Amino acid sequence: MRGFSLRSKNYDMTYCVGIRLKDGMVLASDTRTNAGVDHISTFKKMYRFGVAGERMIFIMTAGNLATSQAVINRLRRDIRQDSGTHLLNVPTLSEAAELIGRYSAQTAQQTRQTAAMIQDNGSFGSTFLLAGQIKGYGMRLYMIYQEGNNIYATCDTPFFQIGESKYGKPILDRAINHNSNLDDAIRAVLVSFDSTIRSNLSVGFPIDLLVYRNNSFTMPQGIRITEDNPYLHSIRSQWSQGLLDILRRFDTPPPEYLA
Amino acid sequence: MRGFSLRSKNYDMTYCVGIRLKDGMVLASDTRTNAGVDHISTFKKMYRFGVAGERMIFIMTAGNLATSQAVINRLRRDIRQDSGTHLLNVPTLSEAAELIGRYSAQTAQQTRQTAAMIQDNGSFGSTFLLAGQIKGYGMRLYMIYQEGNNIYATCDTPFFQIGESKYGKPILDRAINHNSNLDDAIRAVLVSFDSTIRSNLSVGFPIDLLVYRNNSFTMPQGIRITEDNPYLHSIRSQWSQGLLDILRRFDTPPPEYLA
Repeated sequence: MRGFSLRSKNYDMTYCVGIRLKDGMVLASDTRTNAGVDHISTFKKMYRFGVAGERMIFIMTAGNLATSQAVINRLRRDIRQDSGTHLLNVPTLSEAAELIGRYSAQTAQQTRQTAAMIQDNGSFGSTFLLAGQIKGYGMRLYMIYQEGNNIYATCDTPFFQIGESKYGKPILDRAINHNSNLDDAIRAVLVSFDSTIRSNLSVGFPIDLLVYRNNSFTMPQGIRITEDNPYLHSIRSQWSQGLLDILRRFDTPPPEYLA
Repeated sequence: MRGFSLRSKNYDMTYCVGIRLKDGMVLASDTRTNAGVDHISTFKKMYRFGVAGERMIFIMTAGNLATSQAVINRLRRDIRQDSGTHLLNVPTLSEAAELIGRYSAQTAQQTRQTAAMIQDNGSFGSTFLLAGQIKGYGMRLYMIYQEGNNIYATCDTPFFQIGESKYGKPILDRAINHNSNLDDAIRAVLVSFDSTIRSNLSVGFPIDLLVYRNNSFTMPQGIRITEDNPYLHSIRSQWSQGLLDILRRFDTPPPEYLA
């Protein structure tokens, strides 16, 4: 029963970020899957779909691993069978977001019913970030809730996070706006992951990172950033040192602060 | 019914921090109470008890406001009636923590039973930080869970947070260790609150801040830091600017990051 329980409830303490800027989109996810300290594995949480020159679609997911993978498998099967609406023929990303929401809510609901029958009370929902561009439209970034509904990023809300999002939110709030350039977004994303990983052991390296340039309609290669990546390493140490330097440069608190 | 519901569930999205260092303790809490956007009030979340020269005890609380206030009132009534064990005669802070935990769990449990009878399903638990020093002992800092049990700070874990703690944790993780001085702790606490307040509207200024010096056994005056406090203002702007400067000084991401 323990083995079954671990499998059915394998719950990602994922951290994923999607940022939509005027020049392109920056997507990043950690790769750790956690079902207790004795059971930590590395799974990919970022999925790519595309037709060169016509559409590029990226999906990241957090939550129940079985639900997330079932949704991705169903999306892939739809493409293979090429009957009805699927990611490679759906007219708009908005409809793709609705499709993912429907699959996700259905899968979680089925698992919940089975779980209720065996009196297992787990978390079976998943959330998704859907990013991409279809010819004739601008880039779109959606967050799909576990209930199946969705919201999309605007110029005022240029980024979404799913999973363990709070530790890494302040730096994104401060550093990112719609006009930020891609290099700056990459820097902020690395710092955001570093803060999260330092504060929560269940989010871990490596990080999958992918940059899509506006109107390129080419599949980015992406990069898997391991803990020993030299650029990551330099960012982390410069950030740590820089923060302590700012704190040290602050004026001394006035006497009434210590009264 | 709406009025009743708001009162019984008035739930603090508080943020409180307690730090125990070799030279003393730094305690801080926000003052906002929130039961929906149309119903935000300012309440004190930090309580002081003491006998000059003999003991100083400080309590901060987060969670259900009715539960928190009931516990504080009961602690005060015990002192007034001066029968049995109360905060001003309890031999150790460890026993004080157990007392608070018992009162808190009992209060929440009673409310839950009443709520179940009227089919109201709310959050009635509170958490507490208890800090202080009793003559003959070192300074102690406890976190009391809503179930009534507690943990205490050690040299390896010099700070506790309750309430909306994640946004403001990374800076404390980086900046605070047992040997940090009080000035540095104050600076880090202000930054931690600033990050939290920027990321979550339900935590708000002013901040109550109090510094207790090791072995002083005097009641600190404390300070209520409003949003227009000049020192806070300078910290906030130096921090914002400093962070962006670090990000800007980072090397350009290598080409494989944008491939």
